[in-house]
This record gives sequence, C-alpha cells and structure tokens, in this order.
Amino acid sequence: MTAISVDLAAELERALPGGRVVRDPAVVASYAHDEAEWAPYGSPAAVVRPRETAEVREVVSRCARLGVPVVARGAGTGLSGGANAIDGCVVLSFEAMNEILRIDPHERIAIVQPGVVNDDLRRACAEHGLWYPPDPASAPWSTIGGNVATNAGGLCCVKYGVTRDYVLGLEAVVGHGDVVRLGRRTAKGVAGYDLTGLMVGSEGTLGVITEITVRLRGARAAERTIVGYFDSLVAAGEAVSAVTAAGVVPSALELIDRHCLRAVDEWRHMGLADEGDVLLLGRSDSPGQVGEEEADAILACFEAAGATWSARSTDPEEAEALFAARRLAYPAVERLGPVLTEDVCVPRMLVPEMLGRIERIAAEHDIRIANVAHAGDGNLHPLMITPPDDEAARERAQAAFERIVDEAIGLGGTVTGEHGVGLLKRRGMAEEIGPVVLGMHRAIKQALDPAGIFNPGKVFT
Amino acid sequence: MTAISVDLAAELERALPGGRVVRDPAVVASYAHDEAEWAPYGSPAAVVRPRETAEVREVVSRCARLGVPVVARGAGTGLSGGANAIDGCVVLSFEAMNEILRIDPHERIAIVQPGVVNDDLRRACAEHGLWYPPDPASAPWSTIGGNVATNAGGLCCVKYGVTRDYVLGLEAVVGHGDVVRLGRRTAKGVAGYDLTGLMVGSEGTLGVITEITVRLRGARAAERTIVGYFDSLVAAGEAVSAVTAAGVVPSALELIDRHCLRAVDEWRHMGLADEGDVLLLGRSDSPGQVGEEEADAILACFEAAGATWSARSTDPEEAEALFAARRLAYPAVERLGPVLTEDVCVPRMLVPEMLGRIERIAAEHDIRIANVAHAGDGNLHPLMITPPDDEAARERAQAAFERIVDEAIGLGGTVTGEHGVGLLKRRGMAEEIGPVVLGMHRAIKQALDPAGIFNPGKVFT
Repeated sequence: MTAISVDLAAELERALPGGRVVRDPAVVASYAHDEAEWAPYGSPAAVVRPRETAEVREVVSRCARLGVPVVARGAGTGLSGGANAIDGCVVLSFEAMNEILRIDPHERIAIVQPGVVNDDLRRACAEHGLWYPPDPASAPWSTIGGNVATNAGGLCCVKYGVTRDYVLGLEAVVGHGDVVRLGRRTAKGVAGYDLTGLMVGSEGTLGVITEITVRLRGARAAERTIVGYFDSLVAAGEAVSAVTAAGVVPSALELIDRHCLRAVDEWRHMGLADEGDVLLLGRSDSPGQVGEEEADAILACFEAAGATWSARSTDPEEAEALFAARRLAYPAVERLGPVLTEDVCVPRMLVPEMLGRIERIAAEHDIRIANVAHAGDGNLHPLMITPPDDEAARERAQAAFERIVDEAIGLGGTVTGEHGVGLLKRRGMAEEIGPVVLGMHRAIKQALDPAGIFNPGKVFT
Repeated sequence: MTAISVDLAAELERALPGGRVVRDPAVVASYAHDEAEWAPYGSPAAVVRPRETAEVREVVSRCARLGVPVVARGAGTGLSGGANAIDGCVVLSFEAMNEILRIDPHERIAIVQPGVVNDDLRRACAEHGLWYPPDPASAPWSTIGGNVATNAGGLCCVKYGVTRDYVLGLEAVVGHGDVVRLGRRTAKGVAGYDLTGLMVGSEGTLGVITEITVRLRGARAAERTIVGYFDSLVAAGEAVSAVTAAGVVPSALELIDRHCLRAVDEWRHMGLADEGDVLLLGRSDSPGQVGEEEADAILACFEAAGATWSARSTDPEEAEALFAARRLAYPAVERLGPVLTEDVCVPRMLVPEMLGRIERIAAEHDIRIANVAHAGDGNLHPLMITPPDDEAARERAQAAFERIVDEAIGLGGTVTGEHGVGLLKRRGMAEEIGPVVLGMHRAIKQALDPAGIFNPGKVFT
C-alpha cells in the first residue's frame, strides 16, 4: 500500500461508523475484480461496505474532492470486468445494503437496496403472489444493484424483457456527492429525460445506485418444458429459427453444447452428455390451451429441425434439474481453466449462421469454444476455454474473441447482449456504435461526472 | 416576416429539392402550435416538409451554423405545447416522411419513418398477425414520431406499457447535423448508454428523429368489455382501486365523467349520459378461461364499488362504439371552449382520493373540470374548460391547474403521465424532480445540443 492509500483508508475510517472500511489486505484483494479475471485489474486503496445512503454520499464527496475513482460492485459475478478495481480507487461493495424495503402488491412495485440477491427478491415477491422476471443465470448469487448496473438479461427475457424493462426509479449518489431520486413510483410518468434508463446499464460510470424501485408482475402459470437433443450446433440453431418462424414466443429457449454438458457432468455427474451433443430447453408459461399449443409447436419445431431425441418433460423435478444444469454451465466450464466470455446477440433467424461461424472460428484459431445461449433471443455466449498458464492459447482465444465480435457486428448484431461492456467489450462497442455516438457517450459522461471519478475507463476509454 | 426569416426560407429553398419549403403565410401559421393553444407560440421563419434524412441533415446543419431553433413536429396533436413554434425557428414537419419501411415478422420489429400515423402502423402490423401496442387516444391522427418524442401512453398501457417500452432503435440527426443510429435491431443489446431511451420523451430537445425501429407483439385474443356507470367520480375511483386490489391487470380501464359524456352526446347524439354520471370501461384480453375470470372479477369490483348499472358487454360493436366515444372525449370537450389539459399520474390506490380533490378544486376555483382518465394506471386527465374570451375564467383555470399539479406531487404522483412536458408542465416538472435533477437535465442538453438549437425552452427553461 502506498502512503496516500493508507491515508485515504484511514480518513474514511474516521469519517464512517466502525466496521465499514476493510483493511485486511487479503480481504481487500478479494474485491479487486469480478469474474472476468481475464481483464486487467488494479489494487484498491480502500474497500468500503456502506450500510446507508449517507455513508455512500460521504465516500463519494470525499473521492470527488480528492479525484479518487469510485468503483461500485454487487456480488462480483460480472463477466466483463465492469467492477474490476482501478489502482488507488475506493471499492464500494453493497453486500451490507441488502434489505427489501417494501413490496407493494397494489402498485405492483418493490423497493430494494442494491445488495439484495436476485433470487431473494424473487422469493419475497412470490410470497405476495408477485413475480420479478429478470432472471440472469447468476440469479442465485448476483444482486439487483449489479443487475441494474449491467442491465442484466436472463432466461425469461425472450418473453419478458431485461432488467431495464422493470426499473421504475432509482436513488443514486451523483456528481460531487448529491443524493438524487430519479424516475417514479407510479405506473406511468415522463417528467423529462429518462435518467433512470440512462443509469441502468451505465456500469457505475455515471453515479452510484443506492436504492431501486422495480415493477412486478403477477405470479405466472406453471411452465411446460420441452427438451431436445441435436447432433450439431447448427441443427439446434435451426430449431431456434424454426420456433421464431412459427411465431411462438417461448418463456425460455436455452442452448447448451457438448462442452458445457460434459463440464457439468464431470462436476455433478448428471449424465447429460450421454443423450446427445447439443441440448435445447424450451418453455411455455402461457396458461391453459394456449400454453399446450405453444409447447406442442416448440416440440414440432425441434423434430422438424432433426432432433435426435425430443419430448415434452412430464416430470417438473427433472425439468428443474435441467434448468439448474443450464445455470451451472458457466461455473462448470470455469473449472476447466481461464474462460473468456463472449456475449453477442444476433437477429434470431441468424442464430444457425452465427453458430456455424463460431465453430469455424474455433477450428481456425485452434481454441476450445463452449457454447451456452439464450438462443430464443439470439443471445449467444461462446466461452473460450484455455488451459491454465498457457499464454499462447490465451492469445489465440483473444484473437478468436475479436473475430466473433466482428462477425456478430457484420450480421447486424451487437457485442453486448446482457453482460455489459466493462473492459472486455470496449473495442467491440466502439466499433459497433461508431465515433459520433461514442462522442455522445463521452459528452454525457463529462456532463454527469464532472469530477471524473465514477468507474473511469469502463464502457469506453 | 422579418428580413432574416425571408432570407432563411429562401436559403432553404435553394438548398432543398422543390416543394419542401412552405412559404404561404396562412399555411406557415397552421404549423405554429399543437393542440395546446393555451400555451404561448411564436412565428416560424420557415416550415420544411422533408422527404428524406439527408434533407433533415441539411436543415439542421444550416440552423446550427446560424443558431436558428429547430422545432420538429408530427401531426400536432400534442397537448403540452411541445411542438409550439419559437419566433424565427424552422419547423420540421414529418408528414411527407410517412413510409413503413419494413415489417419483419421473424424478428418482430417494424422500421418506420416518423410521419407514419399510429393507426396505420397498427393496421399494417395486423396484416402480419402482429401488434404494435401503444395506443394513445389520438392514434387515428398522431404519428409514431410524435408518440416517440413525447413517450406517449394510451389505453392498453395499463397492461402493455408505453411507447418507450417498444422503441428498440432510432436514426436521428443530432449535434451540428450528424446522422446517427442509436439502439439496435436485435432482441437484446446493451452497447453503452441507453441513448435511444434518452431520446424517447425528450420532445425534440436533443435532436430530430428520422427513423424508428419498434418491437412488436403477436396479435392478441379478442377483448372482453365490462361497462359500469357510477353516480360519482369517487365511487368510480373506488371501483378502480378495487380492481387494483383484486390483483387483476385489465387491458384497459378507462373513466369518462358526465361533462365528457354530455359533450360527446351533444356532438354525436349517443345518449351516453342518459345511463349515469360516470362511465368506467374495463377490458380483458387474456385468452380462454383466464380472460373469463378477469372479466368476471372486474364486473364484481364495479358492483362492489356501488355501480348504478354494470354488465359485461355482449355486443362487440357496442363495445367498440363506447371506446370510440372515449377517444372522442377530448375533441368533444374542446368544442365547448379553450381547454387546459392536465396529465397527472398517482399511485393506483389513490385514484379515488385524487378524483375527490379535483372535484373540490373545481368548486373552490369555480371552474368546470371534466375528467377523462386511464384510470387503471392512475393517469388522470382533468380538463379545465373555460368559456371563449373569458380572461377571468382562464386565470381561475390556470390557478386550478397549478393546484392539481401540487396535489398530485403531494400524493407521490407525477405531473406528466404521458403528454410530455412541453411548455405547460415545466413548473410542475421542475418542482417534481428538484434542482439537482433539473441540473442533470441542463447538463445533458448542453452536452448533446452544444449549438442550443433543438426545440429550446421546451421541457425546461
């Protein structure tokens, strides 16, 4: 630790109630990056675990005065390096601000602190017969604050939209330490520019979110699950296009390839890979006859695209286990070595085309690419897996990563489906949006963060 | 016309293809304001009806060089003065850019020019079995560009959300005349700050929208209609709260009071006011048994709140006629004299409370206030009606207007439900959001409109 960082941590300790500032170097180090360890990260000068908004304001105003970067983080499950520390920064970790402040069944809203874990909110809503839809695969661990900062997607987005679609209002600490309320708690409301939507997905670069008001839906009908195995990625992709072409909107349509199936099997011994090479999991949650027809239509699409085996699941526990396996795909693959995660989204009808290109890129760059995908959205997650400590493989993975970015943009897609931009997607984003729109980003950043302290260097340089 | 304005119109005539610049003073005058004639408006130096984006860019870059304000307008059905001309400005009217460029049933998107009339888009989508939900009462006349600029709401918003929820991407002319593409054409996508959402509802103050990509839904099931008459505003409001408390999400829940019913009757001789004082129209579009149960629950709520008469409509034509009458309420009331339109949104459970306060304010200020409301959203439209040329009544109406603004804010509501801010709601909005958030608005405006030409003085001063 440098002298100035010791001074800052000491100053924050004096300014805040006891127990807020983390000093233990090993613990501080554990806050230095999110799951994207592939991306660079620095050493924080201090880690603060605030318990209320006033403490966040205190930290931000001191940092603004000193010009010290502030990096906010939730559970650190991010995959783009958005929460990676910057040398000498203060990391604000929201794990102790994890209260569900209110669930209002009449207005159908919940008001939460940023550190609430996604699944905890979903469980609490369910007790009121309500449902908070956004369900990233990280839902058992990731927080609403982190979900909002990255505009996280998830499995049911194909039918129900992403985090932004559910955020009505925010409390945030902005500028030099001003606490503001953005948005609303009513069903409708304009009131000027959509600053709430602007904060969602801005990855902590425009301020620090301290409270979130989300819109809820009524609990939905039980889901029907359709399972299909395919002998190639492209065949599975064709089944996805067929569902799209049939005009069916599933409540989930997930793809897991053989690399992921085997990785989960090796870890949890589920025997998933014994049945076939690529697994598609479809769901319909429409009530009554409509749901029956949708499930039948999805099954027919799987069969027409050449499924080697397909069926409607009749056992809810088995269906849940398959979706649990889907959620384990990423941590299972991570056990094999450093993973570089892609997050492209292409037009739905181009899913088979893009999957074919990914296979060719894997072959050409001699790199193992596992695929897990919110396929119904066209949102693909090629995962570049490298052996530990193999620098040459890392370089090949990086080259493959950039190729996939370019191919996705070439197909009219985006390189940041739902994981944010962070550090890993900055080049791709800049290419995708072009210099004028990038200039608009810079102008907004400068306008709302005149001190330049909020997570600088993330999203764009 | 001043010398400089003549020069500007002549310069634009030279720069643009023939027929784009309107010179006839009577025609120019017809573009000077929207439906909010209550608000002040100036004389445009020129009116331009562009046919393509390059022409818009030409106008914007010239105006940026000269520091001339640019006021974009759709059909001019706005109710807040957002499209009112500024002295010496160029009005850009999009009536000739009214093509539906693409409807893609697979990606479920439509790409349209800003001048497309809302109902025309809805009809074209229906031919593909698709549905564009946002349905402002002005849908037969208003344009998608205007809907986007004001983030317009509508009747089915209570279940399906507002315009912003359907805008995926935009083409716009910004800055000193740069053409940019914002947002995306894929199902998901982050790619940095949500500039698309920022443009939606910004009322032309951040740039001029030249193309819009919207998300579509599949055609929905036929709606069931529930009709209820009540003998007071508050009783009807209690029926609305009862529907909310029952956890039912109707696909429409509209309120029309006796002033509006009588105004429509006087115009169209429908006999609506003979049946009772306040009409509630509820709808459910859920398919099958769920829809049956919702319709029954809405009817039970109407009855429990003391409806003087209520029933499920069995005649689709009669139901359509009632909704057509609802859409005519505003133009019918306008026939009685100058109307000052309010657009507050309160928490749903406070609808009866707010309606009671509006009645008291009407009595205290001796002003006739008609009420039409998207009641299921808590979005109320008190309409202050004044006799023609009665300046004292106008002053009393203005005072009542400001009282309603303050009461809505006091109840945790917003003063700009769905009509934008324009000129009429600037004070209310500033009060509602507070000085720091207003400062954020100013900073963004300055960052994205450095020439200060885009609809200056609207939304905030």
